[in-house]
Amino acid sequence: MASDRIQQQIAFIMELDKLKTIYRRAYLAADASRREDDAEHSWHVAIMANILQEYSPAFIDINRVIRILLIHDIVEIDAGDVSIYHRTNPQEIAEKEHQAAVRIFGLLPVDQRAKMMDLWNEFEASQTPESRFAKAMDRLIPLLHNYYTQGKRWKEDGITYEQVMEINRKIEETSPELWTYAKSLIEDSLAKGFLKKSILSEI
Amino acid sequence: MASDRIQQQIAFIMELDKLKTIYRRAYLAADASRREDDAEHSWHVAIMANILQEYSPAFIDINRVIRILLIHDIVEIDAGDVSIYHRTNPQEIAEKEHQAAVRIFGLLPVDQRAKMMDLWNEFEASQTPESRFAKAMDRLIPLLHNYYTQGKRWKEDGITYEQVMEINRKIEETSPELWTYAKSLIEDSLAKGFLKKSILSEI
Repeated sequence: MASDRIQQQIAFIMELDKLKTIYRRAYLAADASRREDDAEHSWHVAIMANILQEYSPAFIDINRVIRILLIHDIVEIDAGDVSIYHRTNPQEIAEKEHQAAVRIFGLLPVDQRAKMMDLWNEFEASQTPESRFAKAMDRLIPLLHNYYTQGKRWKEDGITYEQVMEINRKIEETSPELWTYAKSLIEDSLAKGFLKKSILSEI
Repeated sequence: MASDRIQQQIAFIMELDKLKTIYRRAYLAADASRREDDAEHSWHVAIMANILQEYSPAFIDINRVIRILLIHDIVEIDAGDVSIYHRTNPQEIAEKEHQAAVRIFGLLPVDQRAKMMDLWNEFEASQTPESRFAKAMDRLIPLLHNYYTQGKRWKEDGITYEQVMEINRKIEETSPELWTYAKSLIEDSLAKGFLKKSILSEI
């Protein structure tokens, strides 16, 4: 008989499989054939952080950043994915996500549960250099997906240049260099017609 | 203008998106609704390693194991996924995968390219405790997917109990405890009819 401990660990690991059925707004950058799911996204953004770590002026423990990014969206198994442009009820979302964290990390043995909760709380609070860099990666990657798919999702959702500038400007606090790069993508998206200015801004 | 360096890094990161379009044999364990892709799998197996690291009797640098697993299947963007049960031409596959590694990691700046090649070569050579643990995870997870989907893929591919025992037995070299667990799943799969013995073995 397998021990209770390994049974709990495997139950958690197999519960995670559900993240592969939670679809994000973003389309695949490769061919825009479908929306990407949270599991794929978590993998992609973890590697991205590893590759771009040099753009953090603050010292970061990259191993912790990778761990944070691997688990940052697990709560969406219960709470679902909500676009950053449609978070009109942040407290309600935060409450749902907290309950999800308690349930899902609660499948693990107590010691591992505590470690996972710490990582997830760190990401949510966004106070450490590691969690801030993780958030910057999590912002930058949808911008890249949109840029590589000629703004497909932006167009479908009616997202404007001003909204994209507003949401992504926070990257500057974490990495001025990455913000310079992100800004160049946003300006180029405007020039190429992937994004439009809001009608209000033209009045 | 963005520097050449960041352009190379982003080109690599966006090339990786193609891994989301490379489908494995395994079905989603969550609902068996479709086959899983390499990007999802890489995420899943990296977290799994983190959770199960205590079952390695050898000391392992878990951060290195996670990095290895995050990149272990990237070569399949060019070389495709080949089932472990159908690797009849291992040298040809190895050659294709090597060329893929040269091309894909070659998108990166030289320093990062070398680090990625080292991780991938380490996985392929399977001589270090880290790469061996990564391989054990990569073996164990399809077994779990099959077990959680009542052997759906095994049945479709006509895979037998003997074949599954033979392929997974190598887990024992890395972790006797995980092999004991894996064996219990295989025996239970036989008892439940998810797997059948080969006709030859009954003669």
